[in-house]
Amino acid sequence: MGELALDGPELAELAGLYRELHANPELSGAEHRTAAEIARRVEKLGYQVTTGVGGTGVVGVLRNGEGPTVLLRADFDGLPVREETGLPYASTAVGVDPDGKEVPVMHACGHDMHVTCLVGALGLLVRGRKAWSGTVLAVFQPAEETGTGALAMVADGLFERFGRPDVVLGQHVAPYPAGMVGLHAGPAFAATDALRIRMFGKGAHGSRPESAIDPVVMAAATVLRLQTVVSREIAATETAVVTVGSLHAGTKDNIIPAEAELRVNIRSYTPEVRAAVLAGVERIVRAEAAASGAVREPEFTPLDSFPVLVNDHAAVDRARAALVARLGERSVVDPGPVTGSEDVGAFGAAAGVPTCYWLFGGADPAEYARAEAAGRVAQDVPSNHSPHFAPVIEPTLSTGITALVTVATAWLGRD
Amino acid sequence: MGELALDGPELAELAGLYRELHANPELSGAEHRTAAEIARRVEKLGYQVTTGVGGTGVVGVLRNGEGPTVLLRADFDGLPVREETGLPYASTAVGVDPDGKEVPVMHACGHDMHVTCLVGALGLLVRGRKAWSGTVLAVFQPAEETGTGALAMVADGLFERFGRPDVVLGQHVAPYPAGMVGLHAGPAFAATDALRIRMFGKGAHGSRPESAIDPVVMAAATVLRLQTVVSREIAATETAVVTVGSLHAGTKDNIIPAEAELRVNIRSYTPEVRAAVLAGVERIVRAEAAASGAVREPEFTPLDSFPVLVNDHAAVDRARAALVARLGERSVVDPGPVTGSEDVGAFGAAAGVPTCYWLFGGADPAEYARAEAAGRVAQDVPSNHSPHFAPVIEPTLSTGITALVTVATAWLGRD
Amino acid sequence: MGELALDGPELAELAGLYRELHANPELSGAEHRTAAEIARRVEKLGYQVTTGVGGTGVVGVLRNGEGPTVLLRADFDGLPVREETGLPYASTAVGVDPDGKEVPVMHACGHDMHVTCLVGALGLLVRGRKAWSGTVLAVFQPAEETGTGALAMVADGLFERFGRPDVVLGQHVAPYPAGMVGLHAGPAFAATDALRIRMFGKGAHGSRPESAIDPVVMAAATVLRLQTVVSREIAATETAVVTVGSLHAGTKDNIIPAEAELRVNIRSYTPEVRAAVLAGVERIVRAEAAASGAVREPEFTPLDSFPVLVNDHAAVDRARAALVARLGERSVVDPGPVTGSEDVGAFGAAAGVPTCYWLFGGADPAEYARAEAAGRVAQDVPSNHSPHFAPVIEPTLSTGITALVTVATAWLGRD
Amino acid sequence: MGELALDGPELAELAGLYRELHANPELSGAEHRTAAEIARRVEKLGYQVTTGVGGTGVVGVLRNGEGPTVLLRADFDGLPVREETGLPYASTAVGVDPDGKEVPVMHACGHDMHVTCLVGALGLLVRGRKAWSGTVLAVFQPAEETGTGALAMVADGLFERFGRPDVVLGQHVAPYPAGMVGLHAGPAFAATDALRIRMFGKGAHGSRPESAIDPVVMAAATVLRLQTVVSREIAATETAVVTVGSLHAGTKDNIIPAEAELRVNIRSYTPEVRAAVLAGVERIVRAEAAASGAVREPEFTPLDSFPVLVNDHAAVDRARAALVARLGERSVVDPGPVTGSEDVGAFGAAAGVPTCYWLFGGADPAEYARAEAAGRVAQDVPSNHSPHFAPVIEPTLSTGITALVTVATAWLGRD
Repeated sequence: MGELALDGPELAELAGLYRELHANPELSGAEHRTAAEIARRVEKLGYQVTTGVGGTGVVGVLRNGEGPTVLLRADFDGLPVREETGLPYASTAVGVDPDGKEVPVMHACGHDMHVTCLVGALGLLVRGRKAWSGTVLAVFQPAEETGTGALAMVADGLFERFGRPDVVLGQHVAPYPAGMVGLHAGPAFAATDALRIRMFGKGAHGSRPESAIDPVVMAAATVLRLQTVVSREIAATETAVVTVGSLHAGTKDNIIPAEAELRVNIRSYTPEVRAAVLAGVERIVRAEAAASGAVREPEFTPLDSFPVLVNDHAAVDRARAALVARLGERSVVDPGPVTGSEDVGAFGAAAGVPTCYWLFGGADPAEYARAEAAGRVAQDVPSNHSPHFAPVIEPTLSTGITALVTVATAWLGRD
Repeated sequence: MGELALDGPELAELAGLYRELHANPELSGAEHRTAAEIARRVEKLGYQVTTGVGGTGVVGVLRNGEGPTVLLRADFDGLPVREETGLPYASTAVGVDPDGKEVPVMHACGHDMHVTCLVGALGLLVRGRKAWSGTVLAVFQPAEETGTGALAMVADGLFERFGRPDVVLGQHVAPYPAGMVGLHAGPAFAATDALRIRMFGKGAHGSRPESAIDPVVMAAATVLRLQTVVSREIAATETAVVTVGSLHAGTKDNIIPAEAELRVNIRSYTPEVRAAVLAGVERIVRAEAAASGAVREPEFTPLDSFPVLVNDHAAVDRARAALVARLGERSVVDPGPVTGSEDVGAFGAAAGVPTCYWLFGGADPAEYARAEAAGRVAQDVPSNHSPHFAPVIEPTLSTGITALVTVATAWLGRD
Repeated sequence: MGELALDGPELAELAGLYRELHANPELSGAEHRTAAEIARRVEKLGYQVTTGVGGTGVVGVLRNGEGPTVLLRADFDGLPVREETGLPYASTAVGVDPDGKEVPVMHACGHDMHVTCLVGALGLLVRGRKAWSGTVLAVFQPAEETGTGALAMVADGLFERFGRPDVVLGQHVAPYPAGMVGLHAGPAFAATDALRIRMFGKGAHGSRPESAIDPVVMAAATVLRLQTVVSREIAATETAVVTVGSLHAGTKDNIIPAEAELRVNIRSYTPEVRAAVLAGVERIVRAEAAASGAVREPEFTPLDSFPVLVNDHAAVDRARAALVARLGERSVVDPGPVTGSEDVGAFGAAAGVPTCYWLFGGADPAEYARAEAAGRVAQDVPSNHSPHFAPVIEPTLSTGITALVTVATAWLGRD
Repeated sequence: MGELALDGPELAELAGLYRELHANPELSGAEHRTAAEIARRVEKLGYQVTTGVGGTGVVGVLRNGEGPTVLLRADFDGLPVREETGLPYASTAVGVDPDGKEVPVMHACGHDMHVTCLVGALGLLVRGRKAWSGTVLAVFQPAEETGTGALAMVADGLFERFGRPDVVLGQHVAPYPAGMVGLHAGPAFAATDALRIRMFGKGAHGSRPESAIDPVVMAAATVLRLQTVVSREIAATETAVVTVGSLHAGTKDNIIPAEAELRVNIRSYTPEVRAAVLAGVERIVRAEAAASGAVREPEFTPLDSFPVLVNDHAAVDRARAALVARLGERSVVDPGPVTGSEDVGAFGAAAGVPTCYWLFGGADPAEYARAEAAGRVAQDVPSNHSPHFAPVIEPTLSTGITALVTVATAWLGRD
């Protein structure tokens, strides 16, 4: 397997798939068109394909003799972001969000790249089947962004219907230089808690604030105060993020509305920090409502939730050794724990087997180097979920394919 | 005219019109159904009716011999507010706002009551035509909430086509006890400036704020800082209001959006205060963008704008005398200048004639008295633009009709 | 009396007194040196002088036949401000504040000018005694800044010992152009409430905020939120001021302190507004403590308090007529109600007689005109209590003397 | 040496020294009485003592044959904190801060315990001199809290006069359970930057905010906005602290002051984070001044500064092995990097030799366990710099002495 690789025309064809997926993103749970395209491609490669697993999930199985079963996972949902990359294949797609509102949709988290890499890897594994033996269980998972897709596939009998794997493998594209792969053993991706918070004031004419309890001011004070959870209440040596990703109140300049809605995203790595952050958020929201004289308590609705993703030490060691052998020492780094979250851990947890999930770079290496030289990497290289996020197709694509095949055959390889 | 009044069945019929209007509000500029209903009613009373004046405006003329021309004005647009009155005739109407978004619509400012009172008054004036002589010019004006309707009717040749009045009269329902009328001579309604402000950050994944410039935090800090324009920069003895009526940013908890939009409403009474407030708002918005490290300056778009409405001293004196004679001393008060705005002044200004515009109460007197006893009038009686705003039909309706007829005949009366 | 005036050398001598007083300010209740100097001067003029009235108060009496008794009041305490005027006679004085701390002292409110004008007026009244008859009761009052001096003189038997006046007269220098006098009938100076607020956190090492409850953040959030009392909770047509005049917390950058202290000054004109502001301040302070997770409730200590000063309508009419006759129509204005407070009202209230208290300008007229032309009067002309506040000696001094004599003889004059 | 320990009366005598030091703290640079007491004690033990090294520093030397030189360091300055422990030996001392102001002083960082432990260890080393050979260089360092004492001793010829050590050893008491020792190899204590920031407004009367530029509001908005440096601008996986330890503005409730002073303490571990935090702080302070319309730029004065303290890996390994052998596995932990700072690194850096600096617990183990069970360790156990910080004397003292002797003899021991 070691030296097996796709040729130029094959990569060009996959780049076409990538651009097509990128131009046609679908929101979590509504990935019908994407699922159909995946199924068509994977079936054509010779895999036994099942659709509709846990909603719109797609499973492809290739049995190739004795040996372990390796689960390879790619997620494929898009996000409610208006794309601003200016690319020829930029999305103009529109979706309907859970509140029934039309929103722009974008592959702002690179799941289109995950799918393309896995399709490419599945092709290579077919072609190189003499070099390995065992079973490839390709899992194309929907609804990762809402933290529900992996659990839904498991609940829909994934392991009962397609067999229990020996290891769960997968990867995520990240704003590191393309060509790089990053693995971290132990807790590697943070836990997430998402909340919708409604704060209640009292509406009135914009010219008569004394008749109102202004929820815009209430929400603004809350957003500022919430910053102190991270800056004052959690030790600087711990990891915690509190993001108010959306804030909506009012319809018109001259009407003080009756309420405001905040959507809050929380990251943590330990149960203690998670509990302290959640308690701090609730305490502050309630107190800021009281500061405004709100007559009704705020309303908290939990949204998505992800546990910490823990990478198995032995699995990471095996994967790292294979990657270093294939890509060279300098292309394989340990990025440490990151604040991103992933529901891929649900597969390993449900199956009771190790997970090894890694990052691979998608940033133009030249652009990354310029930003690094200027000391501003974080803000100059578009991050996942940015309207400007778009991996460079190469060498991102070939690196992602190589990484998947390399790590898979670290389990499946004959030698 | 003095003692002329509508009887019970007539008032009941008008109450029906009011409830029908209330249940079917339309947004500024889109008041087609309402305009048609007005035209139908006023024509039936015997007025010469013209529709489509300045958009959806309706003009009714009744010439009744020699004498002055009195312009009686009522506005008839609704607001993008979701009604929460729980009334049997509450609105469930939906409209399309200037951004093309569907929004709930409500008569949250009592324009439905203005229309009903004027229709009632026009009927009484027809019936009592022997007691007065001159011309009644009934002006049903659309798009008051956006400050554009009066100017549009003037620009569409209102005075050239229907004659120049000697005085402009009109009234607004307010959260005072029903049965009361309030007049103030001189500057009586504030100037308004409305702004849309876009603040630009940088989008990123919600878990990586260091890659973003967070526009939610930027906007929140701006809202809080804007409070200091009124609290610190304008003398407490002057009148100024700065309301952020709407604040919108983001689509999802785990995406830091790229921008935030604020809609700001400003009230003032003097050019100096107006200039100081506008300068303060701009200074703060720019500085808060800078505090966040925004790479792009905020964008300011002026929206509606209303000048100060100045009531003519002599006209107010004449109107007050007539109202006191009809309603009694205790029912006619001077509320002082209010922070509400009105574009009715555009008629008088364009025609070069005096304006007399007054308030009439719409609050349940018993409820008002309870709130007053508890020392909490401002917050306990729903104000205009509140989702709970709804005048009690009586005695609001009969007081409004009486007030219009009384003041009109103070100019038109034969004696 | 009408044309009686001081000549150049006399004014020069009084200017010397003013500079001496300005250079030697004393804090409220500690005005020993100033009181002695006043007593010496007034005695020399021929008045019967009593010292030590209500602490350091000084009373001078001149009985000049039949007729009314006119109380002329000047206050004479300084403030804990470090003077930054750069004047040759600037203060470098130091005093001891109520907490026992050494503080710089400055005549930053013009009480030195009040004393000098009254001394000048007393001299003129002696010289012109043939033109009037009655009694002059000169009251030099200490401790105005703390709102305690007038009450203390009354409590010390002022009226029992020196007779009940028929009217209470006085004046305050203000940042209007020198040469101007301003009177307003009715409520003219605001009520004041001053509070000391202690907010309790939990101290810790500056590097370990998670071990602290940070009172600096708690106090900062409170200060910002307090701005909303005026901007959101009080009608813009009412008058209210909430100033946090001092905020102190901590000793060193790397120690998070255990508490913060705020001193808050509140102005209002009506009992309703006063109650609403006080309730709003308390609600916000308690809620912000809760937002920080404070384990101990904040502590509120009332400091100074002044009622609204109401000028008698008839007395103001009489005074205005006399001033217009003497200074000309253009030099006498109605400034409307101001947000300053004064305890002079305690004299009239205790004696049950009318009060007439006016403002006189102290700003360089040329500088004022420049600021007015630039549209920035409020911020460009140093206000009372500013470290840059210093009336121009002339024409402030001669206008103040003329005003006192003119108004006094409007009661005392023979014709 | 292994089993050598102090007996009960000896420990009681040292506890007396500790209480005496605790009751008599002195501010950085003014530790005259403390230095004299140290010199007296160490001389009495038989060390060759030099005082006045780098200000008030004290050096004790014991040459005991061939072998390495081990520098043992204890710092001995107190802090401007008002002690609130309620202990019988609580401090009531007063000092004069750099601004000439009298302030309360407290040993709120445990330097009294450091001194006592080192004096105890020096005694044991004398008694056990047969078990080791080499030189003990005892360095009692003043002015640690200001980050200047170590550099001053080096600059005063410490190594030229007393010889270059082979290793620098020392310890700090921390809010961990007494009996525990914590070591971390690599970067172990954070870099510190301290700033004094003056923000300039414009003073005015408290009732006339429109004449002022309010520095209290300006400073409050700045404090809140500074929270976003940590919460939004630095990756959650990095370590950064921004503390505003002191905020002072104003003298009286009714005077708006002309300026405010903030003292800010910053912690970081990498040059990139340090630069980003410093840039963020400056950007925000300048922007908030601009938001207030300040006419003068804020003034930034660097105060103390500490580099990152890096513990040598080999030295930590050697020390840990010795401590585990002496105290048992369970009493020796790796606390990871902490946000505290230390200038002890200046000795090793100047001498070009390894440093090994560890923490030892001072919290009552029972109290710590209770707090841990309640999930609130951080806030319930008083941290260094808290007015409630006070190590329990035992087993803190004997553990600290044992740790010093154990680690020192890991270098000096004969076997």
